[in-house]
Amino acid sequence: MNAEIITIGDEILIGQIVDTNSAFIATELNKIGVSVVQISSIQDNKQHIIKAFQEAETRADIIIVTGGLGPTKDDITKHTICEYFNDTLIENTEVLAHITQLFQKIANKPLNNLNKQQALVPSKAVVLPNKNGTAPGMWIEKKTKTFIALPGVPYEMKAIITDEVVPLITRKFTLPYIIHKTIVTQGEPESELAERIAFWEDALPQNISLAYLPNLGMVKLRLTAKGVDKKKIEQQINNQIALILPHLKEIFVGFEEASLETEIIKLLQLRKQTLSVAESCTGGLLASSITKNAGVSSFFKGGVVTYQTETKTQLLGVLPNTIDKYSVVSAAVATEMVVGCQKVFQSDYAISITGNAGPEKGDSDAEVGTVYIAVSSPQKVTVECFHFGTNRYRVQNKAKNKALELLKKVIFASENN
Amino acid sequence: MNAEIITIGDEILIGQIVDTNSAFIATELNKIGVSVVQISSIQDNKQHIIKAFQEAETRADIIIVTGGLGPTKDDITKHTICEYFNDTLIENTEVLAHITQLFQKIANKPLNNLNKQQALVPSKAVVLPNKNGTAPGMWIEKKTKTFIALPGVPYEMKAIITDEVVPLITRKFTLPYIIHKTIVTQGEPESELAERIAFWEDALPQNISLAYLPNLGMVKLRLTAKGVDKKKIEQQINNQIALILPHLKEIFVGFEEASLETEIIKLLQLRKQTLSVAESCTGGLLASSITKNAGVSSFFKGGVVTYQTETKTQLLGVLPNTIDKYSVVSAAVATEMVVGCQKVFQSDYAISITGNAGPEKGDSDAEVGTVYIAVSSPQKVTVECFHFGTNRYRVQNKAKNKALELLKKVIFASENN
Repeated sequence: MNAEIITIGDEILIGQIVDTNSAFIATELNKIGVSVVQISSIQDNKQHIIKAFQEAETRADIIIVTGGLGPTKDDITKHTICEYFNDTLIENTEVLAHITQLFQKIANKPLNNLNKQQALVPSKAVVLPNKNGTAPGMWIEKKTKTFIALPGVPYEMKAIITDEVVPLITRKFTLPYIIHKTIVTQGEPESELAERIAFWEDALPQNISLAYLPNLGMVKLRLTAKGVDKKKIEQQINNQIALILPHLKEIFVGFEEASLETEIIKLLQLRKQTLSVAESCTGGLLASSITKNAGVSSFFKGGVVTYQTETKTQLLGVLPNTIDKYSVVSAAVATEMVVGCQKVFQSDYAISITGNAGPEKGDSDAEVGTVYIAVSSPQKVTVECFHFGTNRYRVQNKAKNKALELLKKVIFASENN
Repeated sequence: MNAEIITIGDEILIGQIVDTNSAFIATELNKIGVSVVQISSIQDNKQHIIKAFQEAETRADIIIVTGGLGPTKDDITKHTICEYFNDTLIENTEVLAHITQLFQKIANKPLNNLNKQQALVPSKAVVLPNKNGTAPGMWIEKKTKTFIALPGVPYEMKAIITDEVVPLITRKFTLPYIIHKTIVTQGEPESELAERIAFWEDALPQNISLAYLPNLGMVKLRLTAKGVDKKKIEQQINNQIALILPHLKEIFVGFEEASLETEIIKLLQLRKQTLSVAESCTGGLLASSITKNAGVSSFFKGGVVTYQTETKTQLLGVLPNTIDKYSVVSAAVATEMVVGCQKVFQSDYAISITGNAGPEKGDSDAEVGTVYIAVSSPQKVTVECFHFGTNRYRVQNKAKNKALELLKKVIFASENN
């Protein structure tokens, strides 16, 4: 069973808004075993809408259209549907009653003529009630094809998908079973990861496909399995994951929406141990990536952003001598920063980052992109040097991710001691 | 001149990622007078890609394809292009040299075979260099139609669009003249701003349109003027801006990509004055939003993230008595934090933020969303209380934006003293 999503409205085509509706609909359809073959964003234009309907019919069994159902002149979806299905608009009494009530309750005023037209629906359509707004959803069948028209306002559309569309589709159609499972990895580029797991990828069963989703040092591996026997394909996916996990070892982060932050948060909360951070070139990004998450106050003591060189001495006790001798971007300074940080915050673990994010060389001769990261545990300090390229945004974000990766390793190692 | 954007990749169709690339491309094309007639997201499937190319050719002069250019097995765009244009892949020596250098510099290792394949391009294609990655962009002409294939990684794609695609399109085609001018405002909600400027908006000439782009306390006003006479429409836009600016006064931030950060950076660099920050509930977000920008080490001394209550005493000298008496989310604590911060960093200006970003109440009885922000200048300390709702992401970001807004006001006021 295939679906196509068509979003109607110029605001997407001029780049003014990002289409987030389609991702929501696609996620919900995938969950029930309906594959989305195409998502199209098109103009508020009758000929263009009709052409899109025709093209979609050749690819998909279910066509979901959002947008263009408002009461103003530029909203032409309903009239275009009538033309496409050779139908006429009739007033729907339930919708009219709902809209009238909505206006009294929310706006405390009677319906105007413009909004009364929201109760007009094509005669062949089954109405899908819109509890959050005035424009109803519509379900129209044409031989083997099903057209579903929904309002474009995200929270109205979402409620109709969840409450009406998904239950109706699961009732009407016999659907295959689809499972997605995502493995999150950190610390190995896509191409090397691909080589590492090639033996496994090449031997995947035909009904399981693999996708690589790389982003700033992380690569997500998404497995998709399709079948009719739910139990069997769940078993298949689990078998494949059991096969590959031992080969991912040190780069494995977690499943699905897992990130280094969420894994570290879990670990530290579990162990009731604390963390503090001292940042130079990442300038607060590391602290911010941790405090973005709720519930971190139990283990995150705080951080310092020692951006100017002398603040490393004032706040963290880095010796001026060390800076003179080794420069501010050095293993020695990273080490003194992390020790100072651990002491100031009295935390079990500490991270320090000192480097040059560019675009120009600063108080050090280090090349742009050179970053030293130190991690301190209750047992010891480890420090490493990295080169993250010349793009400031990427240097800062890769340094942040790498610091979390090193911290995770150190926490695991300190468990084994 | 019409364009169509085709994004290739299953991750969009299963709803795993939202397609933000298309909005970027659409915005950039609109700026140079190219209208986008359709955006399609399709599967990594050869037959489907070819069908999408055929359909796009019937609608658009320029077809921009993103995604599927990576080195792994699921990336099939390049082979499909060869089939569509009846072409073969040849090794491009410039691309090979670039990739080899990239691997040596960044990864400090030789090319593997998988990445070497990134240097293969269709023989009919003009290469669009990808300075940020291994997969080059490609420009292929077919009679009157132009196909452009780009990598899907956003920052690689964006650089190629800006540096290569836009200049090439403007050189090759005769386009109408379009000017966009964006006014950045901060501190007034969209609906109130709309009322404030209604008199002006209603009187705009027909060839000038206005769009509101709201985002976390900021509203951008984008004016778009279209015409054939460049001089005339530039004059028109300038006249309209001269008319409205006096009515924006205290909420005006700047033009185009201006942000509070960039304006504050300019001001402090000009005056050779320094800044430091002390954050609690924003957890490093404020420091990070400043240090994201290059060249801030001249005035940004640094910051502290005093996330746990006791660290406010240890690092900033906030009196335990003050915390006991007024609670940690209070004007008194914000004031002692900002004074302590200014002293520790010996900076001219300092900002402090203490509040509750939620989702639960912390070490204070303050409602979720309550935030105190203090700003200290060489002359005085000002402190204000705000309520930013209950969504953690929005509380943190609104607090950060409001803190910068207050700092800007204080810097301006201190100039007048």
